Amino acid sequence: MTSLSDLPLRDSLRGREPYGAPQLDVPIALNVNENTHELPEEVIKDIVKRVGAAAHNINRYPDREFESLRVALCKYLGGGLQPNQMWAANGSNEVIQQIFQAFGGPGRLALGFGPTYSMYSLIALGADTGYVDAPRGDRYELSPELVRDAIEKHKPDIVMLCSPNNPTGTPLSLACIEAAYEATDGMVVVDEAYAEFANESESAVSLLPGRPRLMVSRTMSKAFAFAGARVGYLAADPAVVDALRLVRLPYHLSAFTQAAAEAALDHAEVLLATVADIRAQRDRLVSELRTLGFDPYRSDSNFVLFGGVQDSERTFAELLARGVLVRNVGIPNTLRVTAGTGAETTAFLETLAELQAN
Amino acid sequence: MTSLSDLPLRDSLRGREPYGAPQLDVPIALNVNENTHELPEEVIKDIVKRVGAAAHNINRYPDREFESLRVALCKYLGGGLQPNQMWAANGSNEVIQQIFQAFGGPGRLALGFGPTYSMYSLIALGADTGYVDAPRGDRYELSPELVRDAIEKHKPDIVMLCSPNNPTGTPLSLACIEAAYEATDGMVVVDEAYAEFANESESAVSLLPGRPRLMVSRTMSKAFAFAGARVGYLAADPAVVDALRLVRLPYHLSAFTQAAAEAALDHAEVLLATVADIRAQRDRLVSELRTLGFDPYRSDSNFVLFGGVQDSERTFAELLARGVLVRNVGIPNTLRVTAGTGAETTAFLETLAELQAN
Repeated sequence: MTSLSDLPLRDSLRGREPYGAPQLDVPIALNVNENTHELPEEVIKDIVKRVGAAAHNINRYPDREFESLRVALCKYLGGGLQPNQMWAANGSNEVIQQIFQAFGGPGRLALGFGPTYSMYSLIALGADTGYVDAPRGDRYELSPELVRDAIEKHKPDIVMLCSPNNPTGTPLSLACIEAAYEATDGMVVVDEAYAEFANESESAVSLLPGRPRLMVSRTMSKAFAFAGARVGYLAADPAVVDALRLVRLPYHLSAFTQAAAEAALDHAEVLLATVADIRAQRDRLVSELRTLGFDPYRSDSNFVLFGGVQDSERTFAELLARGVLVRNVGIPNTLRVTAGTGAETTAFLETLAELQAN
Repeated sequence: MTSLSDLPLRDSLRGREPYGAPQLDVPIALNVNENTHELPEEVIKDIVKRVGAAAHNINRYPDREFESLRVALCKYLGGGLQPNQMWAANGSNEVIQQIFQAFGGPGRLALGFGPTYSMYSLIALGADTGYVDAPRGDRYELSPELVRDAIEKHKPDIVMLCSPNNPTGTPLSLACIEAAYEATDGMVVVDEAYAEFANESESAVSLLPGRPRLMVSRTMSKAFAFAGARVGYLAADPAVVDALRLVRLPYHLSAFTQAAAEAALDHAEVLLATVADIRAQRDRLVSELRTLGFDPYRSDSNFVLFGGVQDSERTFAELLARGVLVRNVGIPNTLRVTAGTGAETTAFLETLAELQAN
């Protein structure tokens, strides 16, 4: 039998394993920061209607420039954004990959602030771009000084700022983003995958005017409960969008994806109604985890990282044995849990309390 | 206003323009080798049903390994293929990009036989892989000797064989593929995007056993009339599929794409019923173009490249002015035309005949 090591694999990939949170079928899945609320029937009905209409033309290539989706995204983000400032791809992972293909490359460096979203370094690897994580401050917080110093030290071509940060949930101030932009001649990417759940962080969209090297990436996976549909998007200067058009694969966004995303955006208000609920469960997680003697970090996301776990692997396994899947992100003595529905949050907290009592 | 050249773009992209066949709204669009037959209602109904079912779970990430789609693809391709030999992505462009990410990279070289599919060199560029086109023989034909000699000369890490070839339509013999495989220690990719339309070419799927460095890429865009849905796929050794899992973005294939593709594959027989029709129109194109005094090349595809055009740009423009869009692929004195429905083919041929008469 042929194995991976028998193949003429790219050297940088040798010995690597595919990315992967486990795909387990469990009653309470709180491991990948999904929105655990199903779409309302009225939205599903509209998606089906639009997909059906798109199917009549599916023998033809889709609109390569997804003009009507761009208009819908502008309308949702507001702030005077125009369609030529919008971009979209199959998940914000693909948006970020396209950024690295356009602005990274051999001899170039991307800088993140770790611990942060694990795909940044993997995407950098796949795009032959160097990657380094500067350390965060106390309790994973960033300050303008810390950001500036790291940029001056590493002189990156791309700065990745995750706002709020995954996997720690940490909010990011606009001052940090402004400091990053001023400190570099490179591109600054603010990844706002979880922005809709924020109390503290403000969107960097307001910083776009006059900052052509700034990009704000978003996703419909979280607040829009659309993880399965794979729609990430980005707002930036029109010249940045042109740069992404140079590297995107032609027709990268299917007609079904465009149709489904437009339908969901038409129902933004209904879909975002779950956000208040999820925020409340997140705040409840923080408060009850503290009561249970754990050390939750402040979170602007739909998840909470909590310290004070004696043995992360063991607690992860014990929760899983009881049907509750959380995430061990590899930070010692911590676990990460998604804020689910009220019932899911209760199930998680009660199971954890039981484990503590034993 | 900021322009592309003001941004810190990757050096290799400077001065480039985005890929693009023009997106024009014309009565007779025969420019991008689409299947011009709409899907039958029964298939659309089933797609809508499956997408509706998927929508109920769309708040969750899709199956990262698209297990049931792999099973459906195996069933369609036959030949004893197993699910762990199948791969899929958003169009065969993405499949090819993943191949370059896994097996290309700085210092590595891919070899094609030009003129061939223009995306090979663009994808190579985006994946920091060298690319060279060896010339084809008389009338764009390849022979085992020609293939072997080019491989011995260039020593590529990846060999791209387009079967049948785009944009020339040229069939490829299995002997050429065997010769390529024996001549290289690198990966050999047979791009069978148009395979279902072939009279002469046989599928390289039969060559897979015992050849772990061979990959056969396919698409649902053409024979399945599914260009808008963006489904490319690949058959290879399980170790090759593992290599692609190293570089694919997690959850790259949406739940809607998986659902729609499975529905279409369920109706493979109905969908492929258009193939015989399209072949007949292609053969008609070859024969009537010859009658009109042009020089069509032999084609195993759903399109025909024809020489003997005095001024390609002018004829292209004159056809377009009469509502018929074909493709000027940049080979002097040729144009390429897709085999559409009978009515579309008639419209093209009559318009061309009129132009000649003037």
